[in-house]
Amino acid sequence: MPDFIVTPWEVSGEIDYDQIIKEFGIEPIDEKLLFYIKEIAKELHPFLTRKIFFAHRDFKWILDEYRNGNPFFLYTGRGPSGDIHLGHIMPWLFTKWLQDKFDVELWFQLTDDEKFLFNQPLSYDEAYQYSYDNALDIIALGFDPKKTFIFSDIDLAGVLYRNALKIAKKITFSTIRATFGLDNSANIGQIFYTSIQTVPAILKSIIEEKNIPCLIPHAVDQDPHFRLSRDVLPKLGYYKPASIQCIFLPSLQQGGKMSASVENTAIFTQDSPAEVKKKVNNAFTGGQASAKLQREIGGNPSVCSVFKYHFMLFTLDDKEIRNIESRCRAGDLLCGECKNDLIQKINSFLKTHQERREKARPKLDKFLIKERTDLKEIVKEKLKKL
Amino acid sequence: MPDFIVTPWEVSGEIDYDQIIKEFGIEPIDEKLLFYIKEIAKELHPFLTRKIFFAHRDFKWILDEYRNGNPFFLYTGRGPSGDIHLGHIMPWLFTKWLQDKFDVELWFQLTDDEKFLFNQPLSYDEAYQYSYDNALDIIALGFDPKKTFIFSDIDLAGVLYRNALKIAKKITFSTIRATFGLDNSANIGQIFYTSIQTVPAILKSIIEEKNIPCLIPHAVDQDPHFRLSRDVLPKLGYYKPASIQCIFLPSLQQGGKMSASVENTAIFTQDSPAEVKKKVNNAFTGGQASAKLQREIGGNPSVCSVFKYHFMLFTLDDKEIRNIESRCRAGDLLCGECKNDLIQKINSFLKTHQERREKARPKLDKFLIKERTDLKEIVKEKLKKL
Repeated sequence: MPDFIVTPWEVSGEIDYDQIIKEFGIEPIDEKLLFYIKEIAKELHPFLTRKIFFAHRDFKWILDEYRNGNPFFLYTGRGPSGDIHLGHIMPWLFTKWLQDKFDVELWFQLTDDEKFLFNQPLSYDEAYQYSYDNALDIIALGFDPKKTFIFSDIDLAGVLYRNALKIAKKITFSTIRATFGLDNSANIGQIFYTSIQTVPAILKSIIEEKNIPCLIPHAVDQDPHFRLSRDVLPKLGYYKPASIQCIFLPSLQQGGKMSASVENTAIFTQDSPAEVKKKVNNAFTGGQASAKLQREIGGNPSVCSVFKYHFMLFTLDDKEIRNIESRCRAGDLLCGECKNDLIQKINSFLKTHQERREKARPKLDKFLIKERTDLKEIVKEKLKKL
Repeated sequence: MPDFIVTPWEVSGEIDYDQIIKEFGIEPIDEKLLFYIKEIAKELHPFLTRKIFFAHRDFKWILDEYRNGNPFFLYTGRGPSGDIHLGHIMPWLFTKWLQDKFDVELWFQLTDDEKFLFNQPLSYDEAYQYSYDNALDIIALGFDPKKTFIFSDIDLAGVLYRNALKIAKKITFSTIRATFGLDNSANIGQIFYTSIQTVPAILKSIIEEKNIPCLIPHAVDQDPHFRLSRDVLPKLGYYKPASIQCIFLPSLQQGGKMSASVENTAIFTQDSPAEVKKKVNNAFTGGQASAKLQREIGGNPSVCSVFKYHFMLFTLDDKEIRNIESRCRAGDLLCGECKNDLIQKINSFLKTHQERREKARPKLDKFLIKERTDLKEIVKEKLKKL
C-alpha cells in the first residue's frame, strides 16, 4: 500500500516526489537544465532553484526550439470547484514568470465540465460560476491581456468537443482504467473528459494552421492527462506537449497538502487579515514545547509548515531564507516572531491581490474567450431567413 | 446464439421482430392504438396499417397530451456515413406525415460525431461532409422549413456537449456495457456518445423553458439509446421521450436489410434509372424457376424482395397491393412484369426526388442551424476589446 495518492482527482498523504518521478516517468530538473534556462531567461525563478518546480517532460526541447526561433505557447488550467487558495496561486505565479521571460501566449483552461462530472454534489451552474469567480484571481496576478486567453470549458464547449472527438477516437477505456484507475462505475463524462483536457495543447496550432510547441506548467497530479496527450497528439500530426511540474504547497496543519476541502489547512485569497493571523498562529510548526526549550535546542524548519510557507512563497530572497533557517535552528528565532513575519507578508500580498481582484471584474472581457451559442438566438436567426 | 443482431451499430441476419419486442420491452402498435391515432389524425398512414411502424413507447401518452392541448415535437436523426438509400427514407416519409397531420416541429440530428467515432476509416471531414450531403435528401422530402431544424452534431457541438454533460453524469460505464455491449476496447468517444444522442429530446424544452413532450420516430435499432434517455431525463426534470419504431426495408438480395455497405442490396436516391433497372432485375424474388412453372403453381410474395418493395414503399394503395399479391400467387403475374412495375415506380419517385434534392441546395440555410464558433474569429474579437 502506498503512503500517498496522487491522481488528478485525489492528492493525499505524505508525498514522496522521488517516487513520483520514477512512477510517472518524468525527468527531474537538473543543474544542467537550470543552467540552460538561465542562459535564455537571464535569471532563475526561486521556484526553480528551490526545486518547487522539480520535474518536466521535454522542457529542454522547448528551449531548443525557442532558441531556434520556434517559440512555444503556455497552457495551464484550474478546476473551478471552490475558492482559490495560495496553493493554486503558486504554479500561476511561475506561469506568469514564464510569460514575462519568454514573451509568449498563455491559454488558461477553467475545467468547469470536469469539476461538474467528478464532484457529485457540485451543480453545473455552481461549477460554471466558479469559473468566472476564479478567473478574477488569475487576472489579478497580472498576466498580459494581449497574450492571455482564459476560457471556461462550458463557454468553449463546441471548439473543445469538436477537437476532443479526434483525440477520443484514439483512446480506449482500457487506457483510461490503466491511466486514471477509473472503473465500470465511473460516469461516461468522466471517462471522456481527458480528451477535453488535451485540446488546449493544440488550440494555438489550430488557429495558426501550423504546429506550435506547447509548454504546460502544472502541479504534478495532472501528469496522467498530459501523458495521454503525449501519446495521442503525435498520431494527429502535432508535437507532444512539454511540461514543467511542481510539488504541492503543504498544509498549514501536520501532513498533506493545502486543501480547499480540509478546514484550516489553506489560506484563501479572500481571507481577511484576522483569518490569516488566526490560521498561521494555529499552524503546525517545528518549534519546541516552550520558548525556553526552543532557545536551548533550536527549532526544526524541515518539518515546519510556517517555514515551508516562507520557503515556497513569501521569503523568496535566498539570503533572507537562509537567515530564518539558521536563526531557527540556533534557537534565536522563536515561532511567534517567525509567524508574525509570515502573517505580515501574507497579508501584504493578499491586500494587493484583493485590490487587483476587484479591479479585474470589469476586465473579464479582455481575458475571457467564449463562443456565441445561445440556442434561442440560433433558432431565431434561422427563422429570419425564411 | 441469436440468428440476428440489432444494435445501433450493427443490424444483420433475419430479424424476428416479435422477439425484438420482447427483448427491448417495447409495445406493439395494436388495433386500439391505431383507432386512437385515426381519431386524431383523421387517417392512418399505410406504414401503420401495414405494421411497418410496428412498435412504440408511450405513443398513447403523446396522443393524450396532444388531445389535452399539450402538443409534442418530433425528433429523428441520421448517421451520415454515406449516401442515402430507400431504407433511410422510409421512416422520414412517416416523420413528414406526422409533421403534416399534427402540425408540429421536427428536430433532425445528423450524427456526424457518432459516425466518425464508430467508423474506423471514416475521417472527421468526410463525416461532416456527409451531413450536408444527406441534409439535401431530407429537405427534398418536403418538410416545413418553418417547423424543421436540421443540425449536424459537429455544427451544434457546444449546445450538445453542454447538455450532454448533465446526462453523462447519470450514466455509468456498466450501463453502457449492458445496453450496447461496448467493452474495454471501445474508444472513449463511443462510450460518451449516447449522451449526445439524448440531448435533442430536450432541446425544444430548453428553448421554451418548459417541459415539452418529445416523440421520436426511428428504426428499431436505435431503441437502446432512447431507453437510456428515458431512464435519465426524468432525473433531470424532463418527460421520458416517447417513440414510434419501424422495421427495416429488406435487402434486394436474399436475407438481411437494405444496406449501404453491402453491394446491390440497396437503391440509392442518386441512382440512375439504368442502375435501378439493373438492381431490381437482379433482385431476389419469390418466383419460380421458369415462367411456365410460375403460371402453373404461382409465386411466393412472402419471401419476395420485389413484393416487399411494393408493399413497404411503392404500392401503398391497399387494393392495388392485394391485386399484385393474389395475381402473383395465382400465377397470373410474372416476375418480369412485377419488376417492371416496381422499376417504373421507383424511377418515377427518384426523378422527382432528385429534382427536389438539387433545389434543396440553396435552401440549406433555411433548414440548418449551427453555432458561430470559429476560434480565429473568437480570438480576434477578444483582442479588439483591448
